[in-house]
Amino acid sequence: MSPVALPTQRAIVLHGPRDLRPEERSVWPPQHNHAQVAVMSTGLCGSDLHYYLEGRNGDFALQAPLVLGHESAGIVTAVGPGVKNLITGQRVAIEAGIMCNHCDYCSKGRYNLCKGMRFCSSAKTFPHSDGTLQDRMNHPAHVLHPLPDSCSFEQAALAEPLSVLIHASSRAGLKPGQTVLVFGVGAIGILACALAKSYGASRVVAIDINQARLDFAKANGFASQTYCLPMSDKAKTSEDQLNRAKETIQLALREFGEVDGFDLVFECTGAEPCIQMSIHAAITGGKVMLVGMGSRNLVLPLSAAALREVDIQGSFRYANTYPTALQLLASGKLKGVEKLITHRFALEDTSRAFELLARGKDEDGNMVLKVMIRPS
Amino acid sequence: MSPVALPTQRAIVLHGPRDLRPEERSVWPPQHNHAQVAVMSTGLCGSDLHYYLEGRNGDFALQAPLVLGHESAGIVTAVGPGVKNLITGQRVAIEAGIMCNHCDYCSKGRYNLCKGMRFCSSAKTFPHSDGTLQDRMNHPAHVLHPLPDSCSFEQAALAEPLSVLIHASSRAGLKPGQTVLVFGVGAIGILACALAKSYGASRVVAIDINQARLDFAKANGFASQTYCLPMSDKAKTSEDQLNRAKETIQLALREFGEVDGFDLVFECTGAEPCIQMSIHAAITGGKVMLVGMGSRNLVLPLSAAALREVDIQGSFRYANTYPTALQLLASGKLKGVEKLITHRFALEDTSRAFELLARGKDEDGNMVLKVMIRPS
Amino acid sequence: MSPVALPTQRAIVLHGPRDLRPEERSVWPPQHNHAQVAVMSTGLCGSDLHYYLEGRNGDFALQAPLVLGHESAGIVTAVGPGVKNLITGQRVAIEAGIMCNHCDYCSKGRYNLCKGMRFCSSAKTFPHSDGTLQDRMNHPAHVLHPLPDSCSFEQAALAEPLSVLIHASSRAGLKPGQTVLVFGVGAIGILACALAKSYGASRVVAIDINQARLDFAKANGFASQTYCLPMSDKAKTSEDQLNRAKETIQLALREFGEVDGFDLVFECTGAEPCIQMSIHAAITGGKVMLVGMGSRNLVLPLSAAALREVDIQGSFRYANTYPTALQLLASGKLKGVEKLITHRFALEDTSRAFELLARGKDEDGNMVLKVMIRPS
Amino acid sequence: MSPVALPTQRAIVLHGPRDLRPEERSVWPPQHNHAQVAVMSTGLCGSDLHYYLEGRNGDFALQAPLVLGHESAGIVTAVGPGVKNLITGQRVAIEAGIMCNHCDYCSKGRYNLCKGMRFCSSAKTFPHSDGTLQDRMNHPAHVLHPLPDSCSFEQAALAEPLSVLIHASSRAGLKPGQTVLVFGVGAIGILACALAKSYGASRVVAIDINQARLDFAKANGFASQTYCLPMSDKAKTSEDQLNRAKETIQLALREFGEVDGFDLVFECTGAEPCIQMSIHAAITGGKVMLVGMGSRNLVLPLSAAALREVDIQGSFRYANTYPTALQLLASGKLKGVEKLITHRFALEDTSRAFELLARGKDEDGNMVLKVMIRPS
Repeated sequence: MSPVALPTQRAIVLHGPRDLRPEERSVWPPQHNHAQVAVMSTGLCGSDLHYYLEGRNGDFALQAPLVLGHESAGIVTAVGPGVKNLITGQRVAIEAGIMCNHCDYCSKGRYNLCKGMRFCSSAKTFPHSDGTLQDRMNHPAHVLHPLPDSCSFEQAALAEPLSVLIHASSRAGLKPGQTVLVFGVGAIGILACALAKSYGASRVVAIDINQARLDFAKANGFASQTYCLPMSDKAKTSEDQLNRAKETIQLALREFGEVDGFDLVFECTGAEPCIQMSIHAAITGGKVMLVGMGSRNLVLPLSAAALREVDIQGSFRYANTYPTALQLLASGKLKGVEKLITHRFALEDTSRAFELLARGKDEDGNMVLKVMIRPS
Repeated sequence: MSPVALPTQRAIVLHGPRDLRPEERSVWPPQHNHAQVAVMSTGLCGSDLHYYLEGRNGDFALQAPLVLGHESAGIVTAVGPGVKNLITGQRVAIEAGIMCNHCDYCSKGRYNLCKGMRFCSSAKTFPHSDGTLQDRMNHPAHVLHPLPDSCSFEQAALAEPLSVLIHASSRAGLKPGQTVLVFGVGAIGILACALAKSYGASRVVAIDINQARLDFAKANGFASQTYCLPMSDKAKTSEDQLNRAKETIQLALREFGEVDGFDLVFECTGAEPCIQMSIHAAITGGKVMLVGMGSRNLVLPLSAAALREVDIQGSFRYANTYPTALQLLASGKLKGVEKLITHRFALEDTSRAFELLARGKDEDGNMVLKVMIRPS
Repeated sequence: MSPVALPTQRAIVLHGPRDLRPEERSVWPPQHNHAQVAVMSTGLCGSDLHYYLEGRNGDFALQAPLVLGHESAGIVTAVGPGVKNLITGQRVAIEAGIMCNHCDYCSKGRYNLCKGMRFCSSAKTFPHSDGTLQDRMNHPAHVLHPLPDSCSFEQAALAEPLSVLIHASSRAGLKPGQTVLVFGVGAIGILACALAKSYGASRVVAIDINQARLDFAKANGFASQTYCLPMSDKAKTSEDQLNRAKETIQLALREFGEVDGFDLVFECTGAEPCIQMSIHAAITGGKVMLVGMGSRNLVLPLSAAALREVDIQGSFRYANTYPTALQLLASGKLKGVEKLITHRFALEDTSRAFELLARGKDEDGNMVLKVMIRPS
Repeated sequence: MSPVALPTQRAIVLHGPRDLRPEERSVWPPQHNHAQVAVMSTGLCGSDLHYYLEGRNGDFALQAPLVLGHESAGIVTAVGPGVKNLITGQRVAIEAGIMCNHCDYCSKGRYNLCKGMRFCSSAKTFPHSDGTLQDRMNHPAHVLHPLPDSCSFEQAALAEPLSVLIHASSRAGLKPGQTVLVFGVGAIGILACALAKSYGASRVVAIDINQARLDFAKANGFASQTYCLPMSDKAKTSEDQLNRAKETIQLALREFGEVDGFDLVFECTGAEPCIQMSIHAAITGGKVMLVGMGSRNLVLPLSAAALREVDIQGSFRYANTYPTALQLLASGKLKGVEKLITHRFALEDTSRAFELLARGKDEDGNMVLKVMIRPS
């Protein structure tokens, strides 16, 4: 279209399982209502890891090369025509999902359920939309969110997983004074703990099978009490396993002074016995919020939920959460949340970053929680 | 205590499975804040039938003789000291559950979850509290609800099952204009249909395995569309069964003009395949309300609910529903709902009434929906 | 751009107070994501009348010639590129407000509050956006709503004022079983009554100063009880006037059997004494919903509201209401609502239509409620 | 009734304006479901002060001698029959309002609106119910709330005014991330600030006419920004006054980076110009929560609220708030809130305490916020 040579930039492109390739790509000027962003930080997420390891994430398999990455922030380098809310040089968080803006879900403020959503770094729609593991990208201006001055790029990259919890909390109606149990304290579970505390939860209890994670949660003040479940993958569904879980929860409740259960349980593991225990751990009239996703079909003690009016809810991504997430991150109310970022790599080392994330421990035996990619 | 001979009345007392015995009992004057009621109508309910047939209802077994019946209305025959809202001769609906009034659940308006609740006709608490299958009973005045003039005793007896649906609808946030699917159109399912229509549902679709019930629902205008599932008890959980159910729902949705599903699904069967189908039949962002109760543990397609933000809720009895239920019944907005009452018996024939209810069909082959007991 | 002669159509254009002029205008093909609609019905509204009579509506004065009309339905005559949900020949209701789709309000589903909203027929934004009092117009496809088969064009034109009430009811949390008082039964008040009934309100009481309107409301079943206030414009704010209003409401409540007040009061007059009475007429813990708009500053008995937790809410236009409105109109649940349409004129007689609306009575002394304009 | 001599205790009884008299009263054993409490701390409140100075509080005049005080905590010294949740020696907060437990409001969890409420220290009901300015009192056990170990008696006495704000926040739907403006930072306003922060408000701005109070709010971290309004009582309603207020708010919003207004405004002054400004200061779609109560009738810019969907809500006392209030106070999340307690007096010096509260400043010129009474 233009005889003028366009500048180029580097993208890290997934071609298949464990097959990431750097590519030089032309940088097009941003279209109407779009801006161009130099990506400064991208956090790697579990779904990215699935694509990296298996070339697919659940039902969605790669049909063409794809750039991963959707927890991201950067600097506006150019704005297209029609863009009013942004200027060159502005620091922004990149909301990776681009909603259709015309369907009922969009119109009603539930755009996370929009069936026309194109989500950057996902193979669900075709042609795929590339993610943020590249130097520059063009993106619609209305899903670029200005950073408060006190919010770093890495904090802003955390706005994405934090958004998942803000959305889940909002669906579950989390209220100050409530008691909260979090199953599974990986990055998402830690954020669940931190958010619940910042929302005024009266007590936050964390349960995991990994003592190191629990120690991290406790030491940084994310959880008031932590309990380790001796849960082995082999015996996952056994009676014995469930009984041990029950005892742990009863112990937690006893130490807690509550008789019946927790107002809200965030289930962040997706493991069947944990989902089952979530129902028993919720107080009569309470809620179970499913954040972790597991196998398609599960055995559930459904009448124990229904007869006690324990609502079972899931949440899918987020809608209208970025401004709140960025404010929270900038405010210091999620004190210590940056410690979630345990490892950092340059863009050209993305493969090494994924391999580390897959192992879960670094060479020194340190736990891997969130891995950040920065420009080369 | 008193040398004066007290008057007596007749109660129908359950001593064990299929062992109902009439007894003459003294009529004590009503205590402080209680009133005495001459029972005029009692509807028989599924839980009554369980007690009658098996001497137990799920976990709760008879530990002493018990009077059944809790869907009931009558006439105030005496008021105890302190009663201000009632006078002798007044017609009232009897709310069978007596909450503690002091716990957190009571205080917050969710008294149906009160752990100190004594529910007349239930063996859950001991000593048991007797139900309404007797001529007279003393009952706290604040759970006796005056009848509107245009509300008959039999209609008022229906206020109890209707309350179950009013509560469930309120929990599910049923809104005008929504589309509603009802699985199972026994008495409760019919009331779900009728209530949804009166709440302004834009369409009410009913599914059952019994064509006669569906015909009843359609003929009386309770459902706008009905579909019969060829579901046999034997093949309940088979793939084949589920596939047929899916096809039926897809047909319903097609005829309906909706692409994705129903805003709200009332599951009134408790059957595993129906609960499974409820999740698939709900629209993305919709709700499944479990009204029927089934087996303790179920296989559920949980990720299909969670990822589409389909909430799974149960409801247990009701709270603060009687005035609304009575108004609705008196208003004529549930037109034809009295046709639910298919059979009537005198108090002394309660055994025959239960036997008929157990068979489900009378000698002429007519369907049994709601059986009412009137005084001898 | 094109040397080809474009077809023309007729628009009725307001140039100043009482200065409507027919104009022939070119018909441009619809743009990307737009459709062209042949307008079949337009209802005239109070704000249209203000523009017609005074050349302004409150703060918003005509800055250029403007086509009025925003309660409208028509037939799709052409679709622009990108339009998927519509085909030529389709019958649609025209939602007159075009939201920006990018601001926080749009994103959260409250697009009625969008500050970038362009509303056809309003002089608030400049250049003005023309309304529907013309033969054809191009309009964004996502605010054109397909009509159910059983919904006529005139009914569909009522979807606009009905939307105002659906939105107001939703904000006020109108629930089945509630008692509703409506102040002022012009077209909007009648729709408030009809909607409240269709939502399951247990009783709907209407108050007006005009007995004919009340008779209309009663005769058509929109209100269960009606009361005429002998309110003269001259004595509007007098003590005496207020006292008569209070007596009327107390009479209504007495006949009603309620001790304290109405669950929800729709104030549709904008008159100061009615707004004041609304607060007293609401039950402790109830709501006043301001639908009619009056003078900028008012004397209010605010502590009578605050201490009794009576919420005072306003509502501005509507968001996400058209599909529900059209379904309701098509369903027959608002039985008799078409009788609101008391007079009909052809497009070329729009001036006569406005003059009649201004008078409020026709030559035979019949009340004017809603006036519809049809194509020439 | 009993020939046995009962022990006695001291009560401080109000007989008329500024007429407090110590009295020796018999200590009766607690009735069924009641406990006896030795009062350890009572905070004096504005309504107590009204009774003390004028012998009345608004419409409610003393009809008999009355013991004031309702912000209180103490030690259980005896329990009556039927009391299960308390033991002698237990530390409790005393919730002063005793609801009827039988009306619709109680049943629905809105017991603060109960028309049968007897509120200790209020002259609204007759015979009056005595408050906590005495050594011992009997009180229903279900409105005595156990203190967390880390909660002092004085903190627990603050649970009452804090409850007012918890209730108001809950009605207003205060959510994390929202921006909050507080008009008037006396004790209630300070608690509004502190609570909003603990609930995750993204910014809390305080406005007052008293610089010392604002300094206190700022210095203790209750407000992020403070603005002093040069408001004199004399010129309260003048144009000039209002304009200055508008400028102040615009300044606050400018410094704030928000264009339109605050998500929630707590109006804690009751002053007409502040209430008027609250409406303008709220963001489109936001809320004004009236906590302070002023004159009966006010001029309000109602259309500025209605057309922007700014809800105007009041709140009356509280319901179901004590457990949350005590947890919050014990948790340390309202850091520094005890600094509200500026002065302390022994029970026999209650008159001096009221006189100090009336003056608002002590002899050293220090501001008086909350005055606590401890046992002699």
